[in-house]
Amino acid sequence: MLAITKPTLVLDEDRVRRNIARMAARAARFGVRFRPHFKTHQSRYIGRIFRAFGVEAITVSSVDMAAYFAADGWRDILIAFPVNILEVREIARLASRCRLGILVESDQGLPDLARGVPSDLDVWIKIDIGANRAGADWNDLALLRAICRECARHPGLRLRGLLTHNGRTYAARTPTALARAHADAMKKMRRARQALAASGFPGLEISVGDTPSCSRLDDFAGADEIRPGNFVLNDVTQLELGTCAERDIAAAVACPVVATHPARNEAVIYGGAIHLSKDDFVTSRHDRIYGRVCRPSPRGWGKVLAGTAISAVSQEHGIVETTAAELRRIKAGDILFILPAHSCLTVNLWDRYVRLDGRQVPTIREFSI
Amino acid sequence: MLAITKPTLVLDEDRVRRNIARMAARAARFGVRFRPHFKTHQSRYIGRIFRAFGVEAITVSSVDMAAYFAADGWRDILIAFPVNILEVREIARLASRCRLGILVESDQGLPDLARGVPSDLDVWIKIDIGANRAGADWNDLALLRAICRECARHPGLRLRGLLTHNGRTYAARTPTALARAHADAMKKMRRARQALAASGFPGLEISVGDTPSCSRLDDFAGADEIRPGNFVLNDVTQLELGTCAERDIAAAVACPVVATHPARNEAVIYGGAIHLSKDDFVTSRHDRIYGRVCRPSPRGWGKVLAGTAISAVSQEHGIVETTAAELRRIKAGDILFILPAHSCLTVNLWDRYVRLDGRQVPTIREFSI
Repeated sequence: MLAITKPTLVLDEDRVRRNIARMAARAARFGVRFRPHFKTHQSRYIGRIFRAFGVEAITVSSVDMAAYFAADGWRDILIAFPVNILEVREIARLASRCRLGILVESDQGLPDLARGVPSDLDVWIKIDIGANRAGADWNDLALLRAICRECARHPGLRLRGLLTHNGRTYAARTPTALARAHADAMKKMRRARQALAASGFPGLEISVGDTPSCSRLDDFAGADEIRPGNFVLNDVTQLELGTCAERDIAAAVACPVVATHPARNEAVIYGGAIHLSKDDFVTSRHDRIYGRVCRPSPRGWGKVLAGTAISAVSQEHGIVETTAAELRRIKAGDILFILPAHSCLTVNLWDRYVRLDGRQVPTIREFSI
Repeated sequence: MLAITKPTLVLDEDRVRRNIARMAARAARFGVRFRPHFKTHQSRYIGRIFRAFGVEAITVSSVDMAAYFAADGWRDILIAFPVNILEVREIARLASRCRLGILVESDQGLPDLARGVPSDLDVWIKIDIGANRAGADWNDLALLRAICRECARHPGLRLRGLLTHNGRTYAARTPTALARAHADAMKKMRRARQALAASGFPGLEISVGDTPSCSRLDDFAGADEIRPGNFVLNDVTQLELGTCAERDIAAAVACPVVATHPARNEAVIYGGAIHLSKDDFVTSRHDRIYGRVCRPSPRGWGKVLAGTAISAVSQEHGIVETTAAELRRIKAGDILFILPAHSCLTVNLWDRYVRLDGRQVPTIREFSI
C-alpha cells in the first residue's frame, strides 16, 4: 500500500494499458487512424505506453504540448486548437522537426502562416456541427470554400481534412441520445466533405473523436481518424454517462480525512479545487458533484461508495457528503480516494502521478513552460 | 508593452503595493494584528513586499506552503487548515524552526499531535459560525470546552484563540448585507470567547478576516487579528461585490484572440480552464462568468469592456461574449487581458507571474512540492 500523507494523484497503470489496448482495437476494427488526444494524461511516460500499442500519430491542445511530445520522439502531431498566429515562430520550429497539423476556422490567418512557416503544414478545418462554440459552421460552404482556396494558394499548406469535436455527446444521458448525437455529427461532416468535393476540393479526410462516442458506438463510417483522449484515464463524467465502468477509471486523488461531522453526514478531506479542479458533473438529480469516493484497497482503491460524493470544494479542502452508515467507517487520518469529475483538468494541476507501486510518473509540468 | 504570444499571468506590482499599504493601514487603524493569507499570491517575492510594510505574521493553507515561506525567513506562520495528523513529522520539523500555528476543530487528534511535535504549537480552534462547512459550531460549548481541556493537558499545545472565515460575506450583494453578515460573525465569536472565559479558559484571541469585510467595513471591535488574502490581487468577484475598484485588480491573464464570430458577438481566446481555472462568479443577472475583459493599455491593461465577459471555458480556450460594437474592434492576433473570477485559483495554475516591465516573478510552483 502507498504511504500517503497529503493529496496525491495516483495512477493505476494496468488500467491505463487496458484502456489503451481496448481503444486501439476499436480503432482497428473501425478501420480508422487512432490519433489519441494527449491533453488528458500530459505525460511522456504514458505517451510511450501508447507507442507500445503501435500509435504513431497524436493530438495535443497547445504548441507547448506539441514541443513537449516532439522532444520525446513523436513525429506526427496535430495541434487541435485554432491556430494562434502569434506563435508562428514556435510552429515553424516544430514543423521543421515533425509532421505538424494545425487547425483553422477562417481563411484570414493563412497567408501569414504560409509566410512564417517554411516547412509543410497539414491544415485541418475546425468544423462547428452546431453545438460547439468554435469552428466554421458545417453548413457555411462559402467560408469552407474560402479556406480551401486560400490553402491552394500556398504550396506549404497541405489541406488535410475536416475536424470536429462533438461536445454534445457529453449531454447525452442515454445510449439512444448518444447514438443520435454521434450520427448527426457524422452526417454533417460527410455532407460538408461532399459539398467541398463537388466544389473542386476532393479527398478531404474526416477526423472526429470524443470519448463517449469512441468508447461506446460502432458506426464510424466515413471517418478517417478518431481522436479520443479522456478514455485513457476516464473519470466520474464517463462513469455517470455510462461510457466506462468503475474498473476503467485509472486515476484518483488520494486525500487524507481531516474531520467528520456526523450531525450532517459529512467528512472534510484535505483535497480541494487545487487538487481536483473546480470542474463538476451535474448528476441526474441535478446535484453538482466534484468527484466520487472510494476507500483504499490492497491493490489501489475499491468500489465507489454508495450515496457518497464530493459536494463542495474550496481551495484546499473538499466536503464528502455521505450516509450515516458510511460515515461511521470514516475517521480523521483515513485516506479516501477521490475519482475526479473531469480527469483532464485534475491531471493538469499535478507535477506527477504516483503509481500503485510508489514509482513517480512526471507530467509536462516537470518542465518549466 | 509586454511581448505576449501565449497566455501569460501578468502582475501589476504598483497595484500590489497599494493594496498592501491600504490593508496594513486599515489593520493599524482597527488596532488588530495583520496576518495576511498568502494562499492568494503564493510567491516569496510578493511575500517580501508585505515584509517591507512591517508584516511579520502570515497565514497559509497547507504545510507545504508553510515550508515554502519558512524557507524564506518567515517566523510566525499559521496554517489555517484543519490539522492533518498524517503530516505530523513535517509539522514537527516546521515547529522547530518558527512559531507555528495550527487549526483544530475537535479534541481527538490533539494527543497524537502533542506526542509527535516536541516544540510548542499555537492552537487555534476553527469556529463554524453557521455558514461554513468545516469547524466546531460556535454554539457547541461542550466541544469547545473539550478542545480547551485537551490542550491544557499538553504543555506544548498553547491554546491561542478562536478563528473563523466568514464565507457568507461573499454572498452579500449590498453594503448592508455585508455589514450584517460581518456583525453576526463578530457577535458569535465574542460570545464563544465569553463562554469559554466563563468556563475557565480566559484570554483567547479572535482571528477573522475575509477580504470583503476587511476591505470595506470598519468595526472590528473584539478581533485580535485579521487574515485577508485575496485583497492583494483582487478579482472580478471583489469587483462585482463592490469591495474593490477596477484599479485595485493587480493580476490578469493576457490571452491571444484566435477567432471572432460576428454572427453571435463572440470571440475565441487562447486561454481556458488551465489558465483561468473553472471557478466562476454568478452575476446579478444569474450568468456564470469566468472573467471580465480589458484591452491592453500603454501601462498594462485598460478599463473593463462594457457588456463583455468570459461566458465559457474549455481546457485551453475561452469564449468572449461581447457587443457588436466591441467585437468590431477585436481581431485574431490581438491580446486581451482577462481579469479572473477568482484570483487565488487562477494564480495556483501558474509557475510565475510576468510583471509589466517583463521581469518574471516565480510562484511556489518553481519548486517541486
